Amino acid sequence: MSGEGENDASQTKRMKYSDGEGSRVLKDFSVTKILKEDSKVKLMAIHGKFEGANDDAVLLLEKLPFASKTVNAMLTGSNLHETLKNDIYSTYEAVSPPSFPGYKTTMIYPATEKHIAKYSEQDVFVVHETKELYSMVTKPSLEQSSFSLQWVYNILEKKTESERIIHEDVDPETGFILLPDMKWDRKDVNSLYLVAIVNKHGVKSLRDLNKQCLPLLKNILNTGTKVIKEKFNIPDSKLRIYIHYQPSYYHLHVHFTHVKFDAPGSDVFRAHLLSSVIENIENNGDFYENKTLSFTLRENDNLFKKYNERGYFD
Amino acid sequence: MSGEGENDASQTKRMKYSDGEGSRVLKDFSVTKILKEDSKVKLMAIHGKFEGANDDAVLLLEKLPFASKTVNAMLTGSNLHETLKNDIYSTYEAVSPPSFPGYKTTMIYPATEKHIAKYSEQDVFVVHETKELYSMVTKPSLEQSSFSLQWVYNILEKKTESERIIHEDVDPETGFILLPDMKWDRKDVNSLYLVAIVNKHGVKSLRDLNKQCLPLLKNILNTGTKVIKEKFNIPDSKLRIYIHYQPSYYHLHVHFTHVKFDAPGSDVFRAHLLSSVIENIENNGDFYENKTLSFTLRENDNLFKKYNERGYFD
Repeated sequence: MSGEGENDASQTKRMKYSDGEGSRVLKDFSVTKILKEDSKVKLMAIHGKFEGANDDAVLLLEKLPFASKTVNAMLTGSNLHETLKNDIYSTYEAVSPPSFPGYKTTMIYPATEKHIAKYSEQDVFVVHETKELYSMVTKPSLEQSSFSLQWVYNILEKKTESERIIHEDVDPETGFILLPDMKWDRKDVNSLYLVAIVNKHGVKSLRDLNKQCLPLLKNILNTGTKVIKEKFNIPDSKLRIYIHYQPSYYHLHVHFTHVKFDAPGSDVFRAHLLSSVIENIENNGDFYENKTLSFTLRENDNLFKKYNERGYFD
Repeated sequence: MSGEGENDASQTKRMKYSDGEGSRVLKDFSVTKILKEDSKVKLMAIHGKFEGANDDAVLLLEKLPFASKTVNAMLTGSNLHETLKNDIYSTYEAVSPPSFPGYKTTMIYPATEKHIAKYSEQDVFVVHETKELYSMVTKPSLEQSSFSLQWVYNILEKKTESERIIHEDVDPETGFILLPDMKWDRKDVNSLYLVAIVNKHGVKSLRDLNKQCLPLLKNILNTGTKVIKEKFNIPDSKLRIYIHYQPSYYHLHVHFTHVKFDAPGSDVFRAHLLSSVIENIENNGDFYENKTLSFTLRENDNLFKKYNERGYFD
């Protein structure tokens, strides 16, 4: 339900194009311009007019999701044409029966348990981690599970990936290494994705941040945006700069992504804007020590199991 | 095409189910399990087997995007059935011709320049709105542009959509109406999307929230989750409950979406978790009056023009 209302909406005019049961409303519709095409969501916005009418109309078209109960009928009624084959992956374009929508399909055959797990829906659960839950559940769980940070130290010591470094600030307290994330193809600046990894060891996550970290955080924000402007000509008004909580590894790092890139993990349950983190700490040094931090866990996550064992989801 | 390669992929076996031109590969395919359904991207992952084969297969199905060159033919060949009407917004389900995919459509008629701009592809800019920028730029801009809230008042006064109301709390200060968002098909609970619209007039947005609003916010959080548990059997550990800033209309409302639904506007530049908003205000009544709020604007947004005129993006 979004939408700014308009005062002059004319009931009469609108009804003229609907027979009450609403069929064939588009008979006399002609397209003025295609306003937007979203190939990820399969959506199209069209500006057009009805024959003989003065008023404009906007039509939003969106493909319907697959319906699980009709999948069998859809598959058996479809003809597939192979468009690509690479190792065990094949891509097909489907010519579907009249009663089912056009779609494309990728087949992995033979598929192992690992493939099946990879593409399986994992149930997702929200946790509101209070200060107390952090000390009782999250922190012990992190300390128990021996996430090795060796690969991070290898990067910082330039044993690996040194040729990928975009910027380096060697200060042991406020310095960091800036390098491209694996998800970025390093070509399209509209999907730019860089990560700043701090030199300092022992700052596990957002939870640990306090006034002592302000020079480090400010240096990452200021130097990071300056370097990105210089090297990629992207101004800070095009950047999403944030910290994940929970992070995928417990050595402080900051994400820099282009605003046009719908980056995984930029949602409200995972991303915390660096500028906001700095402001919150400036106003209250204990902000992240005391804050209830909300995030989602998947049922295969180790941390999910710890919360579940405690009956958190009962 | 992501994936861990498999060494034992058998070319022979694979070819058995392809005639070289790749047609009818799915003839003997039976579904073991639907692994994943993504209703935003319109994707489905299926685990299945070919008749007489030992090996498993994973099939990924994805709807095709709309093709701009065939839009005219698709529209004229489609029958539309009205499913909802409120003010100038109408929602239709399309019964499409055999040659075009099934889709749903929303029509705005008559549409103004503003609607056309809203749905056009646009450049995106980040604004960090300080308290001062809010009073100098954002607030005057909101007051100037006369977004009509009549369609909201129609809902609250039950002149429209009253049959869609899921819950109503008539208290003038802490009450609200809970109803489904247009983006929800009202069938699949995994994409549940409800909106709570407050009875009280004059609370424009997150910026206006302070200690006085706590009873209202807590009532929405507690009653909303309770009702959703009762009516849809969805526990609060499956809900994303948040406020948009900037909102699409300046009458306070709260979004309730299923965590599995990758809802538009649930990113860090737009969504503020209601539980976090309540906690921040409890600790500091002026939190949202003083906070720098970061959001994105699109080049056709009126507010973008105001910030641009001031040289904010120079």
